[in-house]
Amino acid sequence: MKSEKFNNGWGVDIDFPLQGREAKPRDIGLTMILDKGLGLNQTKDLLEIAANYIDFHKLSFGTSALYRPKVLEEKIELIKSYGIDIYPGGTYLEVAVTQGKLDEYLNRAKELGFTAIEVSDGTIELTSSLRSAIIKKAVDLEFKVLSEIGKKDKKKQFKMSKMIKQLKQDIDDGAYKVIVEARESGKGISIYNSEGELDEFKMEQLLLGAYDGNDIMWETPLKKQQVKFINALGSNVNLGNIAPSDILALESLRVGVRGDTFKTSLSEEDSIFKTAFLQKDNDIDEF
Amino acid sequence: MKSEKFNNGWGVDIDFPLQGREAKPRDIGLTMILDKGLGLNQTKDLLEIAANYIDFHKLSFGTSALYRPKVLEEKIELIKSYGIDIYPGGTYLEVAVTQGKLDEYLNRAKELGFTAIEVSDGTIELTSSLRSAIIKKAVDLEFKVLSEIGKKDKKKQFKMSKMIKQLKQDIDDGAYKVIVEARESGKGISIYNSEGELDEFKMEQLLLGAYDGNDIMWETPLKKQQVKFINALGSNVNLGNIAPSDILALESLRVGVRGDTFKTSLSEEDSIFKTAFLQKDNDIDEF
Amino acid sequence: MKSEKFNNGWGVDIDFPLQGREAKPRDIGLTMILDKGLGLNQTKDLLEIAANYIDFHKLSFGTSALYRPKVLEEKIELIKSYGIDIYPGGTYLEVAVTQGKLDEYLNRAKELGFTAIEVSDGTIELTSSLRSAIIKKAVDLEFKVLSEIGKKDKKKQFKMSKMIKQLKQDIDDGAYKVIVEARESGKGISIYNSEGELDEFKMEQLLLGAYDGNDIMWETPLKKQQVKFINALGSNVNLGNIAPSDILALESLRVGVRGDTFKTSLSEEDSIFKTAFLQKDNDIDEF
Repeated sequence: MKSEKFNNGWGVDIDFPLQGREAKPRDIGLTMILDKGLGLNQTKDLLEIAANYIDFHKLSFGTSALYRPKVLEEKIELIKSYGIDIYPGGTYLEVAVTQGKLDEYLNRAKELGFTAIEVSDGTIELTSSLRSAIIKKAVDLEFKVLSEIGKKDKKKQFKMSKMIKQLKQDIDDGAYKVIVEARESGKGISIYNSEGELDEFKMEQLLLGAYDGNDIMWETPLKKQQVKFINALGSNVNLGNIAPSDILALESLRVGVRGDTFKTSLSEEDSIFKTAFLQKDNDIDEF
Repeated sequence: MKSEKFNNGWGVDIDFPLQGREAKPRDIGLTMILDKGLGLNQTKDLLEIAANYIDFHKLSFGTSALYRPKVLEEKIELIKSYGIDIYPGGTYLEVAVTQGKLDEYLNRAKELGFTAIEVSDGTIELTSSLRSAIIKKAVDLEFKVLSEIGKKDKKKQFKMSKMIKQLKQDIDDGAYKVIVEARESGKGISIYNSEGELDEFKMEQLLLGAYDGNDIMWETPLKKQQVKFINALGSNVNLGNIAPSDILALESLRVGVRGDTFKTSLSEEDSIFKTAFLQKDNDIDEF
Repeated sequence: MKSEKFNNGWGVDIDFPLQGREAKPRDIGLTMILDKGLGLNQTKDLLEIAANYIDFHKLSFGTSALYRPKVLEEKIELIKSYGIDIYPGGTYLEVAVTQGKLDEYLNRAKELGFTAIEVSDGTIELTSSLRSAIIKKAVDLEFKVLSEIGKKDKKKQFKMSKMIKQLKQDIDDGAYKVIVEARESGKGISIYNSEGELDEFKMEQLLLGAYDGNDIMWETPLKKQQVKFINALGSNVNLGNIAPSDILALESLRVGVRGDTFKTSLSEEDSIFKTAFLQKDNDIDEF
């Protein structure tokens, strides 16, 4: 195995089994967390341990509207200070759009210090020209735009052809990445069945349809989904809707120090370690 | 949509889609959290972010017996300072009753600073006169009494007629609210089937049987249960057994800034936003 | 019921329904937590509330490799200061072994302050002589050794006869306890079926096969598994892979102040409390 020294805090020369993990700042291998309301100290705690493994921090749905302004501003400042982009959940933008208050929404987001904006139509209906206009407006205001494709209602799921068309249009309009919706539950939405199992055919269709597979960020709230994507697309796949308490566990999967992805790095020849190790110190009679 | 300015910390004139949310202090729209052992700093963190959205704080089952007294007293003081009622889980009262030590239990709870008491027979058997006597005794000691109806054992579930009778009796005896048991899991108990799906007929029976539907607090640990109740009974339904990490997510549901309840606020006429918005700035040729 | 005063912080003479709970330091009734990346303040918070109920603290899988050294050292020091053993997850040892770097691994673990080591072959293959050699080497370095039996891959599960043989061999080689693998999910592994239900026959086989049932620590991440083991084997069964947020809930089960185990302590004669209580103060006409 080739050496990979990415941030091994353990401090000895043990390589990570999966190699080539990108370090921050990076445009691939992004991790986005879903924050449903961490307090300021919890946030500090998380960042102290895991800031190197987080690229985007989402204050989910409309939760940002429920903070006291002072606390919200302090939290945004704190997260940015660790080199992490922060943005409000897409649903709150949808509320603003419905009320004809997009400008107020974007201006206030700028004022509060948010660095990114999610543009989605998970609940409302948006024509594609309106969607384009919103994305362009946010880009003009120098937000990183994460657009999202997919409906939150199980009964209103898009066809793949529509998702692919929208994905490419969003990139044309200036979106930084396009998120594939899975909600917090990861079940019964877009590319997942009601058990949260990935429909690999749909995943492949999206990858083939995109200009670049790295344009996509996959919402993978469930561990089995994270494992699936890392084993299929490698350490540097973009993954979102990660629970804050799962950040180190996900990074363990990305670098191969958790069983589910470690095993994929073990080839037949690794079995040589059975004989190479410890022989000088021990009588070993059974192999 | 009519305006609703309840605590929008975002600080701009974006209305909450669901209106009429009561502000604290309130007697409807109560939220009760189930705390399995938050540390002091976690508690502070939670309250700083979410105290406006919490009415009752339960130290679940008998966990209060496992704190060191100094830590317990400090925690109780902290929670009360944010205008939140705090009480020990019902199971510990059941233990005390079984040992003939109700007086010691209530006096010590008073001494520790608890402001409310749960009276339940989730595990033990209580005659209805004994239950009445306990509720009255707690009321006399100036506790807010939350009584609970329902058995923890799946095989010992009550008939609805018995639940309704008990509910009314408890209110007659001075209970502030009557909680419908669902445990931490929300499955296979009282009004929920083994998948946690609500039996709407049973819900309606309880509502019809009660003096006032607002006398009831529904334990809804699962998100799908919270959505169901808010969509059925509105923003100001009383909900309990909420995980501390879900408080902002629940409040988002209550005011309609999460997809599941936002959609119920979108009527046909909302589709006017498709044409009303952005037209001066953009060429939009597709609607 | 006989009296049991173990750490009742509530501060009155209410007995715990399940008796005989061992206090720390102890060799039975151990609780091991699975820590996927708690921050320093969260860790402090947890320990302040629950240190009396934790014996082993595991930094799961390879997460310890993802901390910055300074933070890792501070965390280890903090946990040890509360009289708790701390160790890195077994997978990281397996990575080191695969790379022929066991000595570096153990030396660095010593240097960092870890007090225990997990020896497992959940993902890699180890001959039994190599496994023996690793355990002995760790024992020689004065680590408490927790060995683990069982495969992480559902398709590679061991036969019970092999698990029993390994269990006894590990104890012979100096292991302090032998952990039965269940992963974080608790499903489809070793003694659990795909729903996380315990195979009681396998549990009994292991108990019968062991030199002493107390040599075994059972991974029980799910509440229903904790209930099952406490009801079957008593308050002082060794349990592992407990989520940090569940520590007080588990201890409540161990001492019987949660419904699931409280009821096992209620015998027929307890129903005397129905008549013995409150009679002097109340007219009670119904029993």
